[in-house]
Amino acid sequence: MGGRKMEKAENKEEVSLRELSERVAEFGRVRGWDKYHTPRNLLLALVGEVGEVSEIFQWKGEVGKGLPDWSAADKEHLEDELSDVFLYLLRLADVCGLDLAQAALSKILKNASKYPLNNPHQQQIQP
Amino acid sequence: MGGRKMEKAENKEEVSLRELSERVAEFGRVRGWDKYHTPRNLLLALVGEVGEVSEIFQWKGEVGKGLPDWSAADKEHLEDELSDVFLYLLRLADVCGLDLAQAALSKILKNASKYPLNNPHQQQIQP
Amino acid sequence: MGGRKMEKAENKEEVSLRELSERVAEFGRVRGWDKYHTPRNLLLALVGEVGEVSEIFQWKGEVGKGLPDWSAADKEHLEDELSDVFLYLLRLADVCGLDLAQAALSKILKNASKYPLNNPHQQQIQP
Amino acid sequence: MGGRKMEKAENKEEVSLRELSERVAEFGRVRGWDKYHTPRNLLLALVGEVGEVSEIFQWKGEVGKGLPDWSAADKEHLEDELSDVFLYLLRLADVCGLDLAQAALSKILKNASKYPLNNPHQQQIQP
Repeated sequence: MGGRKMEKAENKEEVSLRELSERVAEFGRVRGWDKYHTPRNLLLALVGEVGEVSEIFQWKGEVGKGLPDWSAADKEHLEDELSDVFLYLLRLADVCGLDLAQAALSKILKNASKYPLNNPHQQQIQP
Repeated sequence: MGGRKMEKAENKEEVSLRELSERVAEFGRVRGWDKYHTPRNLLLALVGEVGEVSEIFQWKGEVGKGLPDWSAADKEHLEDELSDVFLYLLRLADVCGLDLAQAALSKILKNASKYPLNNPHQQQIQP
Repeated sequence: MGGRKMEKAENKEEVSLRELSERVAEFGRVRGWDKYHTPRNLLLALVGEVGEVSEIFQWKGEVGKGLPDWSAADKEHLEDELSDVFLYLLRLADVCGLDLAQAALSKILKNASKYPLNNPHQQQIQP
Repeated sequence: MGGRKMEKAENKEEVSLRELSERVAEFGRVRGWDKYHTPRNLLLALVGEVGEVSEIFQWKGEVGKGLPDWSAADKEHLEDELSDVFLYLLRLADVCGLDLAQAALSKILKNASKYPLNNPHQQQIQP
């Protein structure tokens, strides 16, 4: 574990989904929240957080990549709300007994079959 | 890198968010979709996928943990839709220039301050 | 107008959609908000309000018809959030140049064709 | 009542919310769907339909008022999806025992207190 932690200290982005998912599960477990973490409760919580992300963007018109002209506070607010979406998504997959990391990798492969390279028509209909 | 790849071959779940995010970005880049991947376009795409997850759950009433009695096909359908939410979430954070993994870790720490252990009142109001 | 108001005082529920839609449009117009009321801004505002409705229901597990055991304050909170969804929906249809009342009537007729009576199979798959 | 009906025949937009809500309730009742129409089932169905509206707008970038350049088919598609949101919203309010028309009128009055005219600051923060 010491080696893992040093690695993370050097390269903070290399967090595995499984580690994150376990931390979120532990966070709720020690607070006695497991009884609330049913699939549909978590799905509605996810919808609520997506709503909060939408509220950040709702009156802004088009927003450029990299969020030009946003204040540091606005960016942190968005990070917080995107994180909430993410943490509920991880928790939802977890209580459903699904492996989100593997599912995402499989979905990328499915998408590669569905939208092959050199197929201009499909490239246009589904970006 | 060779060592990492072997590790992944042995333990498929250890996918880092950064790797996934880069794959999703590359997937769109080689298909010429970058021009569509603006923050608000991706947010609406995310909302669309959350809608598809909701459609899976909408007429089921309460659903137990582990999805008892769901067919393998239904579980795979849910995995696909949760993955779509996840991949658009990664892409949205990426085009906003935000590091979702670090943001999620920070949010867990913030939540730990907001909902300290041994505080029965707050435990009840925000599971 | 005097006659209309008296009629409404007698039968408060008989509000036409067009009247409501015009009131919402006027509300924004006199406050100088028209420039913000673009289709995608309003759609994201609608998503935000659906999120707030979801937050009300998120930790409750199944909820019975008529909201048994809900306090008057909780019911009023829900009324407020459902109203926000509704008012943004009306505004969105309006700025898109669509007649929501007629569209809804047409959709009921389409649904009646899609789910004819005495078709047990379709009744089960799409409640 | 005869006068009202003649008026409606002449001016099709004057549909009351109560009439629409009753038609939607009747539609489900005669198909045996009442048992599915619980508050949280309907809320998730509403989220699903909001997702379908979002899918229509997701790759379009900013869209002008009146949907310039949209085909008649695209406009009808949007009308259908907005109607689905609306009909589930009516049904949700109905099974919750709430009067959406009165709630919406009350909310407009609350908003008028919250965002009084001649208050430039609030006008900017909440369009």
